[in-house]
Amino acid sequence: MKTIYLDNNATTRVAPEVVEKMMPYFSEYYGNPSSMHMFGGVVGKQITEARENVAALINADPGEIIFTSCGTESDSTAIYAALQSNPKKRHIITTRVEHPAIKNLCEHLAKTGYRVSWVPVDREGRLDMDYLAHRMTEDTAIISIMWANNETGVIFPVEKIAQMAAEKGIAFHTDAVQAVGKIPVDVKKSGINMLALSGHKFHAPKGVGVLYVKKGTKFAPFLIGGHQEKGRRGGTENVASIIGIGKAAELARKDLADGEMDRVRSLRDRLESEILEKIPNTLLNGSREDRLPNTLSVSFEYVEGESILLMLDQLGVCASSGSACTSGTLEPSHVLRALGVPFTAAHGSIRFSLSTYTTPEEIETVASELPPLIRKLREMSPFWKKGASCSIQ
Amino acid sequence: MKTIYLDNNATTRVAPEVVEKMMPYFSEYYGNPSSMHMFGGVVGKQITEARENVAALINADPGEIIFTSCGTESDSTAIYAALQSNPKKRHIITTRVEHPAIKNLCEHLAKTGYRVSWVPVDREGRLDMDYLAHRMTEDTAIISIMWANNETGVIFPVEKIAQMAAEKGIAFHTDAVQAVGKIPVDVKKSGINMLALSGHKFHAPKGVGVLYVKKGTKFAPFLIGGHQEKGRRGGTENVASIIGIGKAAELARKDLADGEMDRVRSLRDRLESEILEKIPNTLLNGSREDRLPNTLSVSFEYVEGESILLMLDQLGVCASSGSACTSGTLEPSHVLRALGVPFTAAHGSIRFSLSTYTTPEEIETVASELPPLIRKLREMSPFWKKGASCSIQ
Repeated sequence: MKTIYLDNNATTRVAPEVVEKMMPYFSEYYGNPSSMHMFGGVVGKQITEARENVAALINADPGEIIFTSCGTESDSTAIYAALQSNPKKRHIITTRVEHPAIKNLCEHLAKTGYRVSWVPVDREGRLDMDYLAHRMTEDTAIISIMWANNETGVIFPVEKIAQMAAEKGIAFHTDAVQAVGKIPVDVKKSGINMLALSGHKFHAPKGVGVLYVKKGTKFAPFLIGGHQEKGRRGGTENVASIIGIGKAAELARKDLADGEMDRVRSLRDRLESEILEKIPNTLLNGSREDRLPNTLSVSFEYVEGESILLMLDQLGVCASSGSACTSGTLEPSHVLRALGVPFTAAHGSIRFSLSTYTTPEEIETVASELPPLIRKLREMSPFWKKGASCSIQ
Repeated sequence: MKTIYLDNNATTRVAPEVVEKMMPYFSEYYGNPSSMHMFGGVVGKQITEARENVAALINADPGEIIFTSCGTESDSTAIYAALQSNPKKRHIITTRVEHPAIKNLCEHLAKTGYRVSWVPVDREGRLDMDYLAHRMTEDTAIISIMWANNETGVIFPVEKIAQMAAEKGIAFHTDAVQAVGKIPVDVKKSGINMLALSGHKFHAPKGVGVLYVKKGTKFAPFLIGGHQEKGRRGGTENVASIIGIGKAAELARKDLADGEMDRVRSLRDRLESEILEKIPNTLLNGSREDRLPNTLSVSFEYVEGESILLMLDQLGVCASSGSACTSGTLEPSHVLRALGVPFTAAHGSIRFSLSTYTTPEEIETVASELPPLIRKLREMSPFWKKGASCSIQ
């Protein structure tokens, strides 16, 4: 059975070109870039090239790129850097729909003497900008707001927020893990201070991330150790994966320029319209307009998302209910709760996330398999018959 | 020109068996182990197996193994976990010869309200156990002492130290990055609380490490995010590299059982005796007995280590002066200074570090190339002629 992988917001296939580029750096050119011999030097040059490629993808200077081990490390580094650089400020602003990398960290900080403001979102997942504006104070050390949401794909106006933060002299960080590679990201234009991205969300391997730190932004390292990354991140460089993320950035930049994401968007739109048309009592989660081109979050009333996933799995279709990082519980995700998705519908939420490898045939298959699957599950549900007649917005 | 790689304490070749085992997890089974679909489940099983293999290498329980991104992250996690679990204690004990992952972190903590005791070593690099014993107080939150030194290979009596710490109720962490894979490490027997290891020091790729945390030890996560590693380390698992370190651990365990490290030791001993015999005014750094089987640190008087490295490099021989992590400066390393190696000799220090891939022919080549190389460099040195007649211990 062929796998139809529509869980690309959880993680992606490593591009074959990326694997090919990484290979020699395992068993052939395996030197430590910190070593003085030529053998280490070969590796150092490749890291420089990777840094340039990653910088180009987000329009940063190579010197502003710090390689880390993942998006979570990049996010932690950004938050702690701001707090340590502003030791007297005890206030953090973030949103109610952040990834656990920010959400759980801020909840932890809230228990250790920091005050955290959680900006709400509306029914379509859009940020309450007035709420945000009113929370900015002289005590605010950092504003951390994601560029795009991992579950709904909703895009926040980070450029506007960066400008508001700059006017107040507050550091602004964005978790752009889901945005980079899917939509144009331009740090120079946006004026943000720090940005986190993760390789495995755009066809680089897991285990490598990046923190962009705008020149002039106050910074303090999170991982203290050797002199690597100009003293901004200790630990021997993850050479092969850094070379991998460099190649993946090069490919992503080309794809964005070539309109590849428009193709992905049209596939997503096709899946969306087929589902909404053919399956009654189905809700789209999040704004239709301000949204990543690859993401579709829908809620099927009166069915359990986990049951849908299991049945899809039997057909070789990989999708997600809630975010992968919080799966393992049957609670609706904090994101869908923040949007106010009705409880019965939130339980039946499925996220389909496409990639550049997704084909029209795959979308066709899912679009035709899904309606009978949902029908079957609903027929088994004690709530379906009595609930079906109620109309829901 | 064939490379003779004798810089294995800096980093190692990834074993071909390890690369082979990792490969399918890039572009074929690339699922997120947190995902509910089978595709993620395949990966989860492999991570379980890797955890068992790493646990077996150090005689831990699999539940005591936390995968991290590197030795530095493991070390930081251990230190911060102890400090956070003992918020009233403000004292740390470590040594003067730690790797920068501990040294620089403790120097940072010393600036932020912690008191740090730096245990000295003698001329052979052995720890001053009396000094250590007298520094343990009720205020001591953690003792962090490396298992084996990266530059000299000197092995510390960590089992005895663990016992002393346990008697005083103080948490004991060891940076065992250089020990694991080279000598038997048994955490159950030693009774230590936490232990850091790094994959790329024993033929796994760079970018993956482990923190062992003994069951019952007070712990707090350093990377806060998703639920991964049972909530002890956020961030999507570095799947391929974790599978890689599992395979490398399996190979290392087999090699240790088969006496492979005795073969490496005999090669190291041969290189050592050839050098000390054929090259006058040469000093061995560190204890001859309590030492890793693969490490040889020697100081050649009246020559610069960097010049030796450059000339070796031209012959295809990779070695190191000082530790790779602090190279880039011409200062003698803090380790050699702590041993009291005379200034003129410390500048001419070279570390040769062998591995299971080192051959007798390679050792033969280096042993024959080195004497004329040092002679040539000394002939160019203004200090050589007048210094040569002085006898040095």
